[in-house]
Amino acid sequence: MTGEFALIRRYFHPPTRHTLLAGGDDAALIVPQMAHELALSTDLLVGGQHFFPDMDPHRLGQKAAAVNLSDMAAMGATPRWVLLGLTLSSFQESWVAAFSQGFRKILDAHEVDWVGGDTTAGPLALAVTIIGEVPDGQALRRSGAHAGEDIWVSGTLGDAALGLDWRLGRCPDLAPAARDFALERFECPTPRVALGQALRPLASAAIDISDGLLADLGHLLTASGVGAQLELARIPTSAAQPSGPTDSDWQRRVLQGGEDYELCFTAPSSRRSQLEALGRAGTVVLTRIGRVTAAPEERFIQDEKGQSVAVSWRGYDHFAGAA
Amino acid sequence: MTGEFALIRRYFHPPTRHTLLAGGDDAALIVPQMAHELALSTDLLVGGQHFFPDMDPHRLGQKAAAVNLSDMAAMGATPRWVLLGLTLSSFQESWVAAFSQGFRKILDAHEVDWVGGDTTAGPLALAVTIIGEVPDGQALRRSGAHAGEDIWVSGTLGDAALGLDWRLGRCPDLAPAARDFALERFECPTPRVALGQALRPLASAAIDISDGLLADLGHLLTASGVGAQLELARIPTSAAQPSGPTDSDWQRRVLQGGEDYELCFTAPSSRRSQLEALGRAGTVVLTRIGRVTAAPEERFIQDEKGQSVAVSWRGYDHFAGAA
Repeated sequence: MTGEFALIRRYFHPPTRHTLLAGGDDAALIVPQMAHELALSTDLLVGGQHFFPDMDPHRLGQKAAAVNLSDMAAMGATPRWVLLGLTLSSFQESWVAAFSQGFRKILDAHEVDWVGGDTTAGPLALAVTIIGEVPDGQALRRSGAHAGEDIWVSGTLGDAALGLDWRLGRCPDLAPAARDFALERFECPTPRVALGQALRPLASAAIDISDGLLADLGHLLTASGVGAQLELARIPTSAAQPSGPTDSDWQRRVLQGGEDYELCFTAPSSRRSQLEALGRAGTVVLTRIGRVTAAPEERFIQDEKGQSVAVSWRGYDHFAGAA
Repeated sequence: MTGEFALIRRYFHPPTRHTLLAGGDDAALIVPQMAHELALSTDLLVGGQHFFPDMDPHRLGQKAAAVNLSDMAAMGATPRWVLLGLTLSSFQESWVAAFSQGFRKILDAHEVDWVGGDTTAGPLALAVTIIGEVPDGQALRRSGAHAGEDIWVSGTLGDAALGLDWRLGRCPDLAPAARDFALERFECPTPRVALGQALRPLASAAIDISDGLLADLGHLLTASGVGAQLELARIPTSAAQPSGPTDSDWQRRVLQGGEDYELCFTAPSSRRSQLEALGRAGTVVLTRIGRVTAAPEERFIQDEKGQSVAVSWRGYDHFAGAA
């Protein structure tokens, strides 16, 4: 008993900022703001499935927090409270200390309170639940896109997939600077929380890119009952990518690779100048990559010659591997 | 991809009653009631650790829901929304169907909306997050007990431990009726949700009995900075128990056995007649088992001769086994 409860008390009950009762009771107590809806999301991260079990625990803590903050960003919500369910195969205090420091680092940067959770023994896994607030009626959803609107993404795509490729030994010749950048993007993604909130009056629909651009945009298109035409040459990538749009590895990483945790969103063309200004003023570039079309089944990417790029719009199936 | 997303859509997005947006987006959206606090709790259930991996999935679904509802009961909260994180070692539709039916059965009985979650592949495990509402300032906590107050429990104790004993082959001679009752209590506990809400104006502190009477009452005493004197002869047990208070197996099951999910609470003696009436009127008996004492370190159980019963007040350590 000393083990479990002592570790919970020591690392998992940090001070809170806007919470009535945190940790150590049967439930945490919070007081929601008036005239706000609450956004609720749970993400599972299983060792060997979503992260390498030997991953640096400080980075794992950061990633676990960031992945959940990204869901709040995609809704335009302000993240406020987090619950952590941690399943540990063994109790090593140094691991728990480093993990909780990484987790807290990201939460603190966004003023999110870590209010409770559960800890148990078993195969290494994380279950993070995040609760955010969004003014009544202003949440971004996947279902609001209309034909004729623009499709935008934040940041650069394919970086996390490049980091994963390097970890898997698929691109051993990657230059050190590119490798470090890609690994940082893979292991410590930056949730676009401020961007999500700024998009509330501008975007018609939004999603975060966790499963890959085409898979996640596909979810948005399905939810909105529309299609899309993308321009391959417009997809933003970083200088770390060792090849270009005609390379199949580039296409796999940039179009299908997950875990960049950028936002993909749609907006009327009347918002272009505002969005361009937002991209210039903010910390992350915004790029218009295509447009929404009326035909729900139309999912089209054209190369510079106007030819269709043959690539699957499906994402990753946790039960069947890559689909 | 067909596998994961199809199963999520088919079984995990039941209709909701009081939810703005459930499932299929980056987060669910809810509208909290005015003048209410929200109670938040996450529980992990790991296969082989908290349940037998071959447990009937319908019963497992019921138990997963009930265990979380019990946390809301202990706070005096009205359970409202649930998120389920499900890690499956393989996808068997019949298992998923039965599990989700069991899960929904308990949620429906309490009008709780299943609003989202996550599903992935990995070692079988559940992470359930529940959100409840409680009128401002009325939540029951562990920290409100005062010296001189009575200590009460609901229902009977040791039944779930008897069911576990039977499953482990420790009491092969148990009569069929006693076995069925004990297994039902072990696998399908009844969360005391209505009782928890009724206790709000009566109890000074409360906790649910998940780790065993002594361990959980111990948490309450620690949080309140008080001690306790219990009377062994008053501890309520069912007719299923095959032995009495002088038996060490009885003591282990009734005093230390977890998972009964009854409520243990404290109340001023001025509330005795109201609590007795509540027990008579409700669906579960309420029993006064001792009193709160001033000395924080005093944890005393006396038998019928007034002698102290030597038994550990510690609970189960998931990292070290029984403490």
